[in-house]
Amino acid sequence: MRPALALALSVLFFASGQARAGDPLPSWNEGPAKQAIVAFVQKTTTAGGPEFVPPAERIAAFDQDGTLWVEHPIYSQVVYCLDRVPAVVKAKPELAGVEPFKTVMSGNREAIGKLGMEDLMKILAATLTGMSVEDFNAEAKKWLATAKDHRWKRPYTDLTFLPMQEVLQYLRANGYKTYIVTGGGQDFVRTYSESTYGVPPEQVVGSAGGTTYGYDKDGKPFLTKEPKLLLNDDKAGKPEGIHLMIGRRPVAAFGNSDGDKQMLEYTKAGDGLRLSMLVMHDDATREYAYGPAEKLPDTKVGTFTQALYDQAKKSGWVVISMKNDWKKIFAFDP
Amino acid sequence: MRPALALALSVLFFASGQARAGDPLPSWNEGPAKQAIVAFVQKTTTAGGPEFVPPAERIAAFDQDGTLWVEHPIYSQVVYCLDRVPAVVKAKPELAGVEPFKTVMSGNREAIGKLGMEDLMKILAATLTGMSVEDFNAEAKKWLATAKDHRWKRPYTDLTFLPMQEVLQYLRANGYKTYIVTGGGQDFVRTYSESTYGVPPEQVVGSAGGTTYGYDKDGKPFLTKEPKLLLNDDKAGKPEGIHLMIGRRPVAAFGNSDGDKQMLEYTKAGDGLRLSMLVMHDDATREYAYGPAEKLPDTKVGTFTQALYDQAKKSGWVVISMKNDWKKIFAFDP
Repeated sequence: MRPALALALSVLFFASGQARAGDPLPSWNEGPAKQAIVAFVQKTTTAGGPEFVPPAERIAAFDQDGTLWVEHPIYSQVVYCLDRVPAVVKAKPELAGVEPFKTVMSGNREAIGKLGMEDLMKILAATLTGMSVEDFNAEAKKWLATAKDHRWKRPYTDLTFLPMQEVLQYLRANGYKTYIVTGGGQDFVRTYSESTYGVPPEQVVGSAGGTTYGYDKDGKPFLTKEPKLLLNDDKAGKPEGIHLMIGRRPVAAFGNSDGDKQMLEYTKAGDGLRLSMLVMHDDATREYAYGPAEKLPDTKVGTFTQALYDQAKKSGWVVISMKNDWKKIFAFDP
Repeated sequence: MRPALALALSVLFFASGQARAGDPLPSWNEGPAKQAIVAFVQKTTTAGGPEFVPPAERIAAFDQDGTLWVEHPIYSQVVYCLDRVPAVVKAKPELAGVEPFKTVMSGNREAIGKLGMEDLMKILAATLTGMSVEDFNAEAKKWLATAKDHRWKRPYTDLTFLPMQEVLQYLRANGYKTYIVTGGGQDFVRTYSESTYGVPPEQVVGSAGGTTYGYDKDGKPFLTKEPKLLLNDDKAGKPEGIHLMIGRRPVAAFGNSDGDKQMLEYTKAGDGLRLSMLVMHDDATREYAYGPAEKLPDTKVGTFTQALYDQAKKSGWVVISMKNDWKKIFAFDP
C-alpha cells in the first residue's frame, strides 16, 4: 500500500473511531439528559476517582413498557393475551359463553376496552398459565414474529426506542450489567429480551408466577406455569423484586411512570453517585403524549403524574423529554 | 540474557503453562469423575463440534451444602440462627420463657439437637426476618468472620471443597456462568458467595423470603425481611427456582443429596450433552461418611439414599467418591 493511502485510511479509521468513542449516544440531542448519562458513566468508571464503582457493582435497571418500547394505547403483552383467547376458547369451548371471554370473542373493541382489572386477570390467567414453559415460549415467539402494531404496522419488537437502546449498549460497553425490571410478565419478556435488547433471560426481573415440576407420560420432567403470583413487579414490588432476583441495589435506574417511583427512589438512596431517570412521553407526533403536562384524558397505561414530576425535580432525578432530547425515536425513523 | 538461559526459562515457562492448561483439576485423582468433567467441558466448548453449547447458554448449577462445603453435623446457617438466638431474646425478653427459644438458651446441646422442624422454623423466622436487609447482611458477615466450626476450628468459609472450587473456576474459564442453587437462605449465602466461591449475589438462587419496601424516619427507603416464604428451593423447588431466577435450563448440575434429584433430572433432560453429578460423602477420615453404602444412623442432613444412587447409575449421572476421586478435600489439607 502506498504510504499516502495508508495514512489517509488510518486518519479515516481514527476519525471514525473517535466519532464512535466521542458520541456513544448519537440519537440524543445535546442537553442535560444526555450530559447526565455521559457524566455518570465517565465518573463511575474512572479508576481512582471519587465516584468510581467497581465493575461487580455496576447494575443498571430498566423498566420496559414506556421506557424501552411503546406502551400505548395498550401494553403489548395484553394484546398478546387478547389474541390468544380464541385458541383458549377452542381448547375449552365451555368458556365461549362465559365473561370476559365472551366479550373478547365478540371482537367489539369498545367493549373490550371497558373490561376491568378483574376481567383482565382472568384473561391473563387463562392465556399465560396452565401450559408447559416450553409451550408458552413457543406460542409467545410465534406471536412476536407475526403480530403487528396497529399504528406503525410493524412487529412490536421494532417499536423499541433507539436512544434507550444506545443507553443499554453504552452502559454494557462500560462494564454495567443491564437488567430489565418490568411490571410485565417475566416469562413473556424473556422470550425476546436477548434478541431485542441484548439482555439475557437471567437479567429480566418481571411479574412472575409459580411453576410446578412434574413428569410427562414418558417420565420426562417439565415445568407447568401456574396461576399463582409470586412477584407483582410494580411500584414497591420493583425494589422488592430487585432484591429477590439480583440481591444488589442498582447504581442507575430508568423508568417512565408512577409504577417506577419506588425503584428510582431505592436506586438513588444508595451511597455514592447514582442515576435515576424518567422518560416523559411528550411527543404526540412521533410517538404519544401522556406526560404530566399533557392534561390528557386519564390513562391507566404508563401514568406519569405531576406528583412524580415534582418528586423527580426535588430528588435530582433527570426527566427525559422525548420531544426535545431524542433526535430519533425508532431505528426506522427517517 | 544468555540464549541457553533464555531457552531454559522459556521451556520451564512453557512446561508450567502446559501443566496448568493440561490439568485444570489438580486436586482430582484420575478416574471417571474427573474424565467426565473434562470431556464435558471440552465437547461443549469445541466450536463446530456436535456438542457445542453457545456461550450464552452455558449455565452450571451447584447445590451448596454438602456439594461445595461441609454440611455435617448440621447446616452452617442453622448454627448461625442458633447463635443469633441470645441477641433476639435480649431484644424481646418475653421469648426467654417460650419454646423453642428456652431450650436454645439453655445451651443443652442434646435437647437442641432434638428440636423438630416446626421449632426450627420458629428459630429461622425469628433470626432471619424482621430486620432490614442491610442489618441482616452486617450481622451475617460479622458471624462468618468470627464463628468457627467445632471439628476443624476454622471459619465455615474455609470448609469449602477444593476440588469443587476447581470445577467452578474451570467452568468459568470456559465461559460458563456458575450459579449456586441452594436450599439454604438466598440472602445468607449471598453475603459470602462472591468472596468464597467467586459467585456474585445475582447468581445465587436459594430459599427466599419476601421483603417489604418502606421508609425510615428520615424518609429514606429500605427493605425489611419478612417471614413469608416465596421459594422453598429444595427438591422440586430447585428446578422451579431455576426457572424463576435464571429462566434457562442448566447444562451442568452438581448436587449431593435427595434434595438435588429434581435439579439433576431437569438438567439431564435438556437437549444435547448434559452433565449431572453427585458428590458422595464416603470419607469419614478426611470429612464425613453418610453415603448410601455407609449404613449410618439415619441422618436428616444431606440424605443420599440408595434409590438416588440407583437412579444416578441408571440415568448416566456421575457419582463422585470423595474418598477415591479427591486428592485433597480442603485447601488447608497437607
